[in-house]
Amino acid sequence: MLGEFSLIREYFQDQVPSDTLGVGDDAARIPVPGATQVVACKDLLIEGRHFFPDVDPGTLGHKALAVNLSDLAAMGARPLGYLLGIGLRTVQPDWLKAFSGGMVGLGRRFECPLVGGDTVRVSGEIVISVTALGTLPAGQTGLLRQAAKPGDDIWVSGYLGAAHIALSGLQGDTRVSRECLAATRSSLETPEPRVALGQALLGIAHAAIDISDGLAQDLGHILEESGCGAILRCADLPLDPRLDGLPQDLQIRAALTGGDDYELCFTAPASKRADLSRLSQTCGLALSRVGVIRKGSGLNVLDTNGRQMELQHVGFDHFRRDVNER
Amino acid sequence: MLGEFSLIREYFQDQVPSDTLGVGDDAARIPVPGATQVVACKDLLIEGRHFFPDVDPGTLGHKALAVNLSDLAAMGARPLGYLLGIGLRTVQPDWLKAFSGGMVGLGRRFECPLVGGDTVRVSGEIVISVTALGTLPAGQTGLLRQAAKPGDDIWVSGYLGAAHIALSGLQGDTRVSRECLAATRSSLETPEPRVALGQALLGIAHAAIDISDGLAQDLGHILEESGCGAILRCADLPLDPRLDGLPQDLQIRAALTGGDDYELCFTAPASKRADLSRLSQTCGLALSRVGVIRKGSGLNVLDTNGRQMELQHVGFDHFRRDVNER
Repeated sequence: MLGEFSLIREYFQDQVPSDTLGVGDDAARIPVPGATQVVACKDLLIEGRHFFPDVDPGTLGHKALAVNLSDLAAMGARPLGYLLGIGLRTVQPDWLKAFSGGMVGLGRRFECPLVGGDTVRVSGEIVISVTALGTLPAGQTGLLRQAAKPGDDIWVSGYLGAAHIALSGLQGDTRVSRECLAATRSSLETPEPRVALGQALLGIAHAAIDISDGLAQDLGHILEESGCGAILRCADLPLDPRLDGLPQDLQIRAALTGGDDYELCFTAPASKRADLSRLSQTCGLALSRVGVIRKGSGLNVLDTNGRQMELQHVGFDHFRRDVNER
Repeated sequence: MLGEFSLIREYFQDQVPSDTLGVGDDAARIPVPGATQVVACKDLLIEGRHFFPDVDPGTLGHKALAVNLSDLAAMGARPLGYLLGIGLRTVQPDWLKAFSGGMVGLGRRFECPLVGGDTVRVSGEIVISVTALGTLPAGQTGLLRQAAKPGDDIWVSGYLGAAHIALSGLQGDTRVSRECLAATRSSLETPEPRVALGQALLGIAHAAIDISDGLAQDLGHILEESGCGAILRCADLPLDPRLDGLPQDLQIRAALTGGDDYELCFTAPASKRADLSRLSQTCGLALSRVGVIRKGSGLNVLDTNGRQMELQHVGFDHFRRDVNER
């Protein structure tokens, strides 16, 4: 079996700029030019809980990094580099090559190199821990959850619901046609982090969050942290066109309470609508106005007829329910 | 059972300076004043492999952070903050309180707050992943493994061997008296990261590494990366005084090939001996000159009589052997 050091050299030695010290020393060293603030986030992914044991390793590598780049995007940060901790039962060269290919490939698209980490052996579940680092310009608070203001529009990037329908179809919880599953699966497995949008929102948006646990729950975090309430209009939700054949209430439920979309939900004053319309064109990404922040508390969801809706499932909490129990 | 968000608020909400954004948003945000380089390292610790299932949770929290602060120290970096990923089977309040107390307490001593992370549930082994962030002044390369030069003295901080003897005694591999075990256990469980020393070595030392896998193996990394060889004199090894009653060859073996000491091994030109003598007094920490870097390759170990020694065990590689197999 390959030793730890050969394994790192073979699979996890990314190209880094000449002023960056990557994998191979006690720690990584990265210059942070033009910035005085570091942004950092971390996710821990467990086999059987966050991904299926037979998942395609290339998409797993992609997703493990994508969810962290998505967190950076939700802060408005520019990616700087990332560290990978991985616990494996055995060293399978094909699996590792595909995994690191998916991860490193995504990182390169965002000029975000793999700069360090740790590899260990486990007896049980495979463990993947990614820490992504980014920067914010001096004086920028970033797009905080606590920054929503009454009167702000609530916006969502891209389309919602496809990732949840794919997961639900793969788990056999929802009857989904083979065509629909084939079409939606990429949203679940290789989500696109909205990195450019996040940075462009600095100076335009107030609060932002990425939608990992479902729009209702993630918007709920913004409301809680900002001490505000909100009205959310189902008629304005950007339902994924790939879900067209499914019952409308299922589409809406997926958009509201399904996780894994990794689109951005953000709030901005009405005076920024024109800016956001232009930004949508620049980024080539739909931006939909789905509601409004108001004084008070609580999330008031209006159905497609404008009537108040009851929300039963409002998302996902790791210590209450997990991917296998949904 | 506590939910994920309550768990984080309850146990992992550290005090952070007012210009820092800690736990609770998409990512952490930390100012990096007076620095243009970020240093980052990451460790993944697995129950049964890196720590015993019945380990005291307070010492586990301490050690999980200490090994990362030690990596920062080995780069000469100033600690900035850290992120914690933790995978638990269940939420046990007493365990979590002790764990976070040990971790957060150590961080505070180094003005290094817990700023973010992730908590998940596992079915198998407990997983702990810490990422520590630090800074280096502009233009500083840090203390790199590749920077040793022929003629450099080889130095070691503190004393060596106690952590390995404690581990070996606990595992029943070595016969160790109850008194000796009681005296050495803290080296294994609550090692002291040499953070002040690391920063003070900038401008004095060339190469540095922290001794996690044993002096011989870790010095070997410096030699490999620097393209040099070395002579190491056993007669000059700083054997831990707590090992006095043990056979000398066992003490020397523990110092050379035992892991977990988390002292710094560094190289410096002979012209810096006076500086290092002063630094030893300032830091209140023994610094011992144990050998010399030379041209060529390979580690030449001289026994206490100055004769060349054969090294059989040269350390620890996670994908070859693990804590249970030693």
